Amino acid sequence: MTETDLQNERSRYVGLAMDAVQRRGEAVTRAVLATEARTPRARIDALFPEENDLFDAIVAEWFAPHVAIMEEVVAADMPVNRKLYEFFARRFLHMRKRYHADPATFQLYCELGRDNFKQIESYVDLGDHYLSELIAQAQADGYLSGVSIADALSLINQMLHCYIQTDILLYLDHRLSEAKLGRIIDTILAGLSSDQGQAQGVTGLRVA
Amino acid sequence: MTETDLQNERSRYVGLAMDAVQRRGEAVTRAVLATEARTPRARIDALFPEENDLFDAIVAEWFAPHVAIMEEVVAADMPVNRKLYEFFARRFLHMRKRYHADPATFQLYCELGRDNFKQIESYVDLGDHYLSELIAQAQADGYLSGVSIADALSLINQMLHCYIQTDILLYLDHRLSEAKLGRIIDTILAGLSSDQGQAQGVTGLRVA
Repeated sequence: MTETDLQNERSRYVGLAMDAVQRRGEAVTRAVLATEARTPRARIDALFPEENDLFDAIVAEWFAPHVAIMEEVVAADMPVNRKLYEFFARRFLHMRKRYHADPATFQLYCELGRDNFKQIESYVDLGDHYLSELIAQAQADGYLSGVSIADALSLINQMLHCYIQTDILLYLDHRLSEAKLGRIIDTILAGLSSDQGQAQGVTGLRVA
Repeated sequence: MTETDLQNERSRYVGLAMDAVQRRGEAVTRAVLATEARTPRARIDALFPEENDLFDAIVAEWFAPHVAIMEEVVAADMPVNRKLYEFFARRFLHMRKRYHADPATFQLYCELGRDNFKQIESYVDLGDHYLSELIAQAQADGYLSGVSIADALSLINQMLHCYIQTDILLYLDHRLSEAKLGRIIDTILAGLSSDQGQAQGVTGLRVA
């Protein structure tokens, strides 16, 4: 069996595992996958030597469209404000489509992600990596002047948290829209710089 | 018994109920409160005629400091950028203090709030009411020009969602700070207007 055959085989079993997650409404172990797929346990273990390997492969499958979107947008030939919008909007719409297609399974994946954050952290880091590239492009175009990339990254992630954090869809879906997302990007590009107001004040919080 | 005595009595039992919530790690019914407080059930029922009345009284106790903060800030004699900051920062710091004091109980209240959203909705509406007042004050001072109050309300709530939504503290605490909150307010006041860029573009989302 070539490495490609092995990849295809693994990919097929990841699909079967995700079907089983949807059907059973819970995380699926290698033992359960073997039963559900009527496949000898030894075959499953050859494809996924460790228990985590199956979960990691499901996570990779879940995030693959996000990674593809980010790579395409960062490389695209568009003004940087449009890029920032598409960077967040495409992933948001992809998530929302998934959510509407099957809210219960979507919620289950949110919980699995929350409970296994270590295993999804590299995808969060990858998002930060690509967003940092867009921030650098924005600064080259005169936006976000005087703001460090680390600060811009954190502030942008926070201001767009509603459109990034998967499980916020579960309660805020009806309030979220592409138009609002676009206006938030516009607000950030027009308003975030080192030449800012003093909302926080100089004496810190006034004690009530 | 005067109405004031009755209020004091009710308040005392709300305190006992919240102690029981903390000790037991679960929502507390009137029956449980009677047992925990070694008080005849009839007495509890006289104070809280319906089951919801006890929960509502606990919610009111939980939100009382938030309401006090909002009322004080809206009426304060400060520039509107400072008011907006204090409006969010004081409540955020109050929540964070509660969270750090007892993370498990805090998480329980988050879950109770999520599961009984109808009963906390009026406090969310009250927050929107006061924020609308601050938006009108900001517009009188030349900020947020040309933006409808409804749009400003929704966009500001979304951009500050991390500092409003209680349970985000459970996973994002280490990334949240008063300095960042202040910069987000500054960004909103400097950047949110009807005279904005076109991040969303005119042709909508490009299909990947």
